[in-house]
Amino acid sequence: GFARVDLDRARRTGDPEVVYGAGKTPEQVVAILRTLHERHPDRAVLATRLSEEAMAYVASALPEAEVHAVARSATLGPLPEPRGTVAVLSAGTSDAPVAAEAALSVRVHGAGVDLVQDVGVAGLHRLLAVRDRLEDADCLIVVAGMEGALPSVVGGLTGVPLVAVPTSVGYGASFGGLSALLGMLNSCAPGVTVVNIDNGYGAGVFAARVARAAGPRR
Amino acid sequence: GFARVDLDRARRTGDPEVVYGAGKTPEQVVAILRTLHERHPDRAVLATRLSEEAMAYVASALPEAEVHAVARSATLGPLPEPRGTVAVLSAGTSDAPVAAEAALSVRVHGAGVDLVQDVGVAGLHRLLAVRDRLEDADCLIVVAGMEGALPSVVGGLTGVPLVAVPTSVGYGASFGGLSALLGMLNSCAPGVTVVNIDNGYGAGVFAARVARAAGPRR
Amino acid sequence: GFARVDLDRARRTGDPEVVYGAGKTPEQVVAILRTLHERHPDRAVLATRLSEEAMAYVASALPEAEVHAVARSATLGPLPEPRGTVAVLSAGTSDAPVAAEAALSVRVHGAGVDLVQDVGVAGLHRLLAVRDRLEDADCLIVVAGMEGALPSVVGGLTGVPLVAVPTSVGYGASFGGLSALLGMLNSCAPGVTVVNIDNGYGAGVFAARVARAAGPRR
Amino acid sequence: GFARVDLDRARRTGDPEVVYGAGKTPEQVVAILRTLHERHPDRAVLATRLSEEAMAYVASALPEAEVHAVARSATLGPLPEPRGTVAVLSAGTSDAPVAAEAALSVRVHGAGVDLVQDVGVAGLHRLLAVRDRLEDADCLIVVAGMEGALPSVVGGLTGVPLVAVPTSVGYGASFGGLSALLGMLNSCAPGVTVVNIDNGYGAGVFAARVARAAGPRR
Amino acid sequence: GFARVDLDRARRTGDPEVVYGAGKTPEQVVAILRTLHERHPDRAVLATRLSEEAMAYVASALPEAEVHAVARSATLGPLPEPRGTVAVLSAGTSDAPVAAEAALSVRVHGAGVDLVQDVGVAGLHRLLAVRDRLEDADCLIVVAGMEGALPSVVGGLTGVPLVAVPTSVGYGASFGGLSALLGMLNSCAPGVTVVNIDNGYGAGVFAARVARAAGPRR
Amino acid sequence: GFARVDLDRARRTGDPEVVYGAGKTPEQVVAILRTLHERHPDRAVLATRLSEEAMAYVASALPEAEVHAVARSATLGPLPEPRGTVAVLSAGTSDAPVAAEAALSVRVHGAGVDLVQDVGVAGLHRLLAVRDRLEDADCLIVVAGMEGALPSVVGGLTGVPLVAVPTSVGYGASFGGLSALLGMLNSCAPGVTVVNIDNGYGAGVFAARVARAAGPRR
Amino acid sequence: GFARVDLDRARRTGDPEVVYGAGKTPEQVVAILRTLHERHPDRAVLATRLSEEAMAYVASALPEAEVHAVARSATLGPLPEPRGTVAVLSAGTSDAPVAAEAALSVRVHGAGVDLVQDVGVAGLHRLLAVRDRLEDADCLIVVAGMEGALPSVVGGLTGVPLVAVPTSVGYGASFGGLSALLGMLNSCAPGVTVVNIDNGYGAGVFAARVARAAGPRR
Amino acid sequence: GFARVDLDRARRTGDPEVVYGAGKTPEQVVAILRTLHERHPDRAVLATRLSEEAMAYVASALPEAEVHAVARSATLGPLPEPRGTVAVLSAGTSDAPVAAEAALSVRVHGAGVDLVQDVGVAGLHRLLAVRDRLEDADCLIVVAGMEGALPSVVGGLTGVPLVAVPTSVGYGASFGGLSALLGMLNSCAPGVTVVNIDNGYGAGVFAARVARAAGPRR
Ligand SMILES: Nc1ncnc2c1ncn2[C@@H]1O[C@H](COP(=O)(O)O)[C@@H](O)[C@H]1O
Ligand SMILES: Nc1ncnc2c1ncn2[C@@H]1O[C@H](COP(=O)(O)O)[C@@H](O)[C@H]1O
Ligand SMILES: Nc1ncnc2c1ncn2[C@@H]1O[C@H](COP(=O)(O)O)[C@@H](O)[C@H]1O
Ligand SMILES: Nc1ncnc2c1ncn2[C@@H]1O[C@H](COP(=O)(O)O)[C@@H](O)[C@H]1O
Ligand SMILES: [Mg+2]
Ligand SMILES: [Mg+2]
Ligand SMILES: [Mg+2]
Ligand SMILES: [Mg+2]
Ligand SMILES: [Mg+2]
Ligand SMILES: [Mg+2]
Ligand SMILES: [Mg+2]
Ligand SMILES: [Mg+2]
Repeated sequence: GFARVDLDRARRTGDPEVVYGAGKTPEQVVAILRTLHERHPDRAVLATRLSEEAMAYVASALPEAEVHAVARSATLGPLPEPRGTVAVLSAGTSDAPVAAEAALSVRVHGAGVDLVQDVGVAGLHRLLAVRDRLEDADCLIVVAGMEGALPSVVGGLTGVPLVAVPTSVGYGASFGGLSALLGMLNSCAPGVTVVNIDNGYGAGVFAARVARAAGPRR
Repeated sequence: GFARVDLDRARRTGDPEVVYGAGKTPEQVVAILRTLHERHPDRAVLATRLSEEAMAYVASALPEAEVHAVARSATLGPLPEPRGTVAVLSAGTSDAPVAAEAALSVRVHGAGVDLVQDVGVAGLHRLLAVRDRLEDADCLIVVAGMEGALPSVVGGLTGVPLVAVPTSVGYGASFGGLSALLGMLNSCAPGVTVVNIDNGYGAGVFAARVARAAGPRR
Repeated sequence: GFARVDLDRARRTGDPEVVYGAGKTPEQVVAILRTLHERHPDRAVLATRLSEEAMAYVASALPEAEVHAVARSATLGPLPEPRGTVAVLSAGTSDAPVAAEAALSVRVHGAGVDLVQDVGVAGLHRLLAVRDRLEDADCLIVVAGMEGALPSVVGGLTGVPLVAVPTSVGYGASFGGLSALLGMLNSCAPGVTVVNIDNGYGAGVFAARVARAAGPRR
Repeated sequence: GFARVDLDRARRTGDPEVVYGAGKTPEQVVAILRTLHERHPDRAVLATRLSEEAMAYVASALPEAEVHAVARSATLGPLPEPRGTVAVLSAGTSDAPVAAEAALSVRVHGAGVDLVQDVGVAGLHRLLAVRDRLEDADCLIVVAGMEGALPSVVGGLTGVPLVAVPTSVGYGASFGGLSALLGMLNSCAPGVTVVNIDNGYGAGVFAARVARAAGPRR
Repeated sequence: GFARVDLDRARRTGDPEVVYGAGKTPEQVVAILRTLHERHPDRAVLATRLSEEAMAYVASALPEAEVHAVARSATLGPLPEPRGTVAVLSAGTSDAPVAAEAALSVRVHGAGVDLVQDVGVAGLHRLLAVRDRLEDADCLIVVAGMEGALPSVVGGLTGVPLVAVPTSVGYGASFGGLSALLGMLNSCAPGVTVVNIDNGYGAGVFAARVARAAGPRR
Repeated sequence: GFARVDLDRARRTGDPEVVYGAGKTPEQVVAILRTLHERHPDRAVLATRLSEEAMAYVASALPEAEVHAVARSATLGPLPEPRGTVAVLSAGTSDAPVAAEAALSVRVHGAGVDLVQDVGVAGLHRLLAVRDRLEDADCLIVVAGMEGALPSVVGGLTGVPLVAVPTSVGYGASFGGLSALLGMLNSCAPGVTVVNIDNGYGAGVFAARVARAAGPRR
Repeated sequence: GFARVDLDRARRTGDPEVVYGAGKTPEQVVAILRTLHERHPDRAVLATRLSEEAMAYVASALPEAEVHAVARSATLGPLPEPRGTVAVLSAGTSDAPVAAEAALSVRVHGAGVDLVQDVGVAGLHRLLAVRDRLEDADCLIVVAGMEGALPSVVGGLTGVPLVAVPTSVGYGASFGGLSALLGMLNSCAPGVTVVNIDNGYGAGVFAARVARAAGPRR
Repeated sequence: GFARVDLDRARRTGDPEVVYGAGKTPEQVVAILRTLHERHPDRAVLATRLSEEAMAYVASALPEAEVHAVARSATLGPLPEPRGTVAVLSAGTSDAPVAAEAALSVRVHGAGVDLVQDVGVAGLHRLLAVRDRLEDADCLIVVAGMEGALPSVVGGLTGVPLVAVPTSVGYGASFGGLSALLGMLNSCAPGVTVVNIDNGYGAGVFAARVARAAGPRR
């Protein structure tokens, strides 16, 4: 066929391969989801970065699949029991799709999610009001566009491991998320790690692994 | 001579020309300071970005001049009476030279200064503890390197006009201050304006003009 | 709901939150405008960066709103009495939308506006002819694309505080406004501050604050 | 004094502030180390990015301090008992200083270290020979310069959480570590997170937190 | 006419000119293909980077032409007897069009092809399983997007000359293929050469020349 | 020898080869100057970008040579009679070395020079005062660093052909002359052409050719 | 109205203002063309960078105007008698629109044109065959995309003043014309000047001025 | 020890590991050269990018080693019999060190060298005069800085496989070799491949492999 799916990945890494939907036809997405589901019938497999067409085709061709519209993703098979908790914070309303992709990826990879949206640094009281939810998590995912300052502030408030996700939200000198990315890489708060622009998926996989190993929490 | 000094500038703009010391010999710096001082004997004239050699030569050739070591600058002539107040905030210890250049430029251009150092966002309580000093100012200068997040947080706490100064403090993907600059340009807080990397002088001129016009405060 | 609107902002900073329309559905724009208007019934609230669809939907769903087509913005509620004056200058015809967004933001945030269009440096007589209008202002906003040279020339003519707005007007090596942005950051005129590319809104908020505090003028 | 040390950080985040030695005088480094040690007498405090002069001065002024020459760092006070294990991998000989800074930061922040050097992808057998040491760790730090390919290969071999550290090793189009940084951000292996170029310290803090919460291992 | 086709190229370099379809009308593509075919009736001439419209128009206007849909290319005239072998490897499913363009270019320029798809480094066993096919080739073309790590791994496994082709597959900080390009240029494996992003054609010409001269192999 | 000097260049282009001193030993500079002088005994040959050492060695080894300290250049042989005039304008004092290299190159290549220094746009009256000297020239060279705005203003005042030279004068976001370069390339004044950063030599050759062909002026 | 047309430009610079069509409505283009034509009834006025819609509207609203489809431009009024000659060379077929804009701008600004297309450096004989046409010109415009090497080769063959125009033709690492632009700025041939990417207009104005002053040729 | 030398590389790839001298102490260089020499006593091993100190220390500590000053490299052991020929062309005098590193690497890796220096495109006759030496080679290495145009011209003259090496020779907008690199990647001549800036070593390894397989020539 057109793909050499890495069916051995779950054995090596604990997590099966995930379909990267960008640049694939709806038919290809459905075919790979089916192949992965056959290999892993008892746990959800995931497809991300789906076009409108791909989401529609998945819904009709795989009635048992679940389509997650905000996250532009689909799952096939039952979600695992959550172990440990990842808090997913986002700075603004426009960051919602990336936060949703991150949250879904956390769930598919075996941890629980606490979603906290629209707590950007320009209105600090919103963040300070949820401070205990930060402490209750085993890992944090912090999603922000524009100048990407939220991880620095969160990282100064708590020692919970923190993965920052820059988004392409912004205009002009945001250069498609580059400013947020650079801001997060240069964070003056210790212990902030970063993933690619808009990569909610990567942050989710990572954070789920950290939370699974840590939780139920010390 | 080697220079066509803009002796008419004070008439047009209210403020005399300032000596940009980079790339000038100590002799050139002293000569231009003298020319400017002759034209404006009753108010301080300023030279910035001085090398060690230039500072030493100014001190010996112009005994009546004042050398400001941290700001790498020198003044000649009496400082004006301050009108209005500019609060100069800096994020970290290493931002001190830029903050000092800003503060001195504010004073030379006729406003008063309140200097607040080392209040970076990774330890938010330090900033929250000085919140009333922000409100007491007519204009703010906020100096920060690395990710440059401090102006966003300050800009969310107060409506006092805010000029952000990115510094070249940092390493790796800070790219000589570019990350801080981009962060400030993309600030999600409204009403943040920005000057060039390490340009304490430009921020100081601007903020002094704003403070002079506003203070004594409403 | 989908958003955690910062309803406390006017208390902290003197100005209410503004709707950033990019990436929001027309329905979301209208809903947030309504929420903000309820909180601030006696002063105009603002939405910027609206799509054609959003402008049309605002016009039909909120008949009492005013849609500003050139500025791609809408206001809801009465504009405040102006205090102080901001002169908004633009270099070329194509900079009109950004200049309009700046002018409207100034008005919404409480200052008066004097709009001076198409006075680019390639025809200097056009600028010199309006020189007294510069001096009559409490703050200047200077909008320019391509090489962004206008703020340097204006900043050499007057000492009125000057906020420069680079625009994305141009092609080739203008790199979406980057050249104008860099030109303004490196201005050899003292006291020029800069905002993000095409950010008429940010310049307007800032300049209104400066003008309100200064005017009626000394 | 010259600094507003964040003495409250350990209470908020579990870990005390660390001295960032770049741009500080040897005297400043020693003074801050002393202040931090007084506050935290029973656990090691850390100073990183020290010049030759600063390392020498620390050694003479603080005889009880330990200077770590390869890591260009110093510690003062007893290292904590390790909990959990971080494996630190490096691609080439020239990456040693960054790997050493990472390893030391892990130890200071409370986890154990397994250091595996010079296992770059051009000689894959070297990495495959240590595969079980990867599996035995609770978190991985993978240090590489030039094209930064090592994290992608490691991330395909194991599901242990992986923090990648790009280094400035290379020349020409490596652009001071930018190529390695971009390579790691775009890794096709799931669950790779990244820190700033040469930021062994940040990776160490993060990985120690992950390992402490996970170990002794499932 | 509109073009000055280089009909002398085959005499100088051994290979005729090739039609670069981007920015040409379907009519222009067909006209140049005809001109080249008249000059070289006994060997295939090639057109690359064809739009859907151009492919359709070539198919109808030149029935004897062969349209290669995945490679977005067309050939006119008989393919030469292959001499030597080029192995074309690709990292992921989405790299298929570039790999197809490379493979077709190799054939048109006189060498044989062994196509090996979807052997990215995140699942190393897939590559190790085809190791003997690498050794059997006279030249390798290695196609990869995102971080572009595959050439480094292949280049460490074999001494067969290797041409790397970065692709624009990816998002965010892949910057349209820039990350893969930089990764390949900085490869720590010796003897890796690189062509432009998505330039399967250039890699194919080059590799065919190397393979023709070397094969039938030592 | 170490070089294959292009002794045929004067026949082809009218102007002999010039020694690019950067990266050459003093001995190499002297040897090539001698070779060129032997070929062209009756007209000056030129060496640019000389180090202090090279200038000193030229002075001692070639007593008949003239060393131009500000221009960091040397000439050997008699300067030609000037035909036509090039006006060389510079924006600031620090641009003097580049302006001097341009002026000397003009003279060596056969035109006359009118040097006008320190007429930057922040003090416009200085430029307006020399307006007739612009009109008297056959070609203009305009040298500026920082934002590089001077060519736009000059190009709006006159239709004399204008070559702009960006300089590396500036700091921070001037990025070694990049901002000035971009500004000049995007000039809104018609008919501005640009050369490389600090390339006074290239501007001088070009302008001399234009002036020679035009002057004595219409 | 919406524009402050610079009707004084011809008096100052010898050439009237030109309509920059990008971002203007067809109605605006026609209105400004009319205004300029009224001011300059006896010489052609020019509009560039017209959309399909603008070209169609000009053709219908201004029947006496001439629409130049390849150049995407329009003229209104009689072309001047040519004085001197500009040779316009282009490297490839895809550079035709930029070459056509340059050629038309030369004619509108008063010089004659010799157009030489498709003489790129990969087939050098094509260029060598037209060498005498280079020598017969008073100024050269050399248009090229991709690596932009043509000006270096031409500049080594002749001493006629040469203006290089980089085009956005290319893909991948051509970065929208940046590679060609950088190549031309770094040309090792002396006396090459450069304009913005795709700026045939600017090159045309400049070259016409040079040719007018020089021709009829020495 | 400090390094895990890849002693197995010759078995896998046919060529032993090479010492990358940058960032290594003289002692480390000598130690690794010794280790490699012991493993491969009958063929030369190579160290590149040596500092002055390292070259001096190699000369004294390993008297049987040969130090190649221009190439800043050293070899230990007998050079192999050459098979096939690589022609190494350079554009200018300043490219000599990179050309020398390339030539030496070719010899160490088993092919013969024909070195042709200073044949840049601004004086085309120099290149045309050596055209038959191009045809006699089995592979070409073309070294050039500044705009990097030489490979395009050579690639249009011959079909011999061509590896281009950009150098950091230049200033201003050459950006440390970036312009030459981009120029070569975008070459309009077919079949040009590229290595990292200043990477004579990589080009040499690659070209030697191609030449060894091809020569004695068809
Ligand atoms: N949204 C995403 N962002 C980055 N990587 C992804 C994403 N979704 C899937 N992947 C990775 O892409 C691989 C599949 O690539 P492919 O073979 O092209 O389908 C998966 O195994 C994941 O490692
Ligand atoms: N090597 C390092 N790299 C990045 N950040 C560091 C490093 N060492 C210390 N830091 C951070 O810098 C802060 C201290 O900055 P400062 O106030 O300038 O001394 C610490 O609290 C850490 O968060
Ligand atoms: N194609 C073009 N590229 C660059 N500048 C142009 C172009 N066409 C016209 N211009 C310039 O743009 C000015 C008009 O700009 P505007 O006022 O926006 O119409 C003219 O006077 C020219 O200097
Ligand atoms: N001048 C050079 N440029 C790029 N890579 C080199 C160079 N010299 C040696 N290498 C590579 O670097 C590897 C050795 O790196 P290291 O382990 O740091 O000594 C060698 O096996 C070569 O693949
Ligand atoms: Mg919000
Ligand atoms: Mg601090
Ligand atoms: Mg206009
Ligand atoms: Mg090694
Ligand atoms: Mg795959
Ligand atoms: Mg000056
Ligand atoms: Mg062609
Ligand atoms: Mg030479």
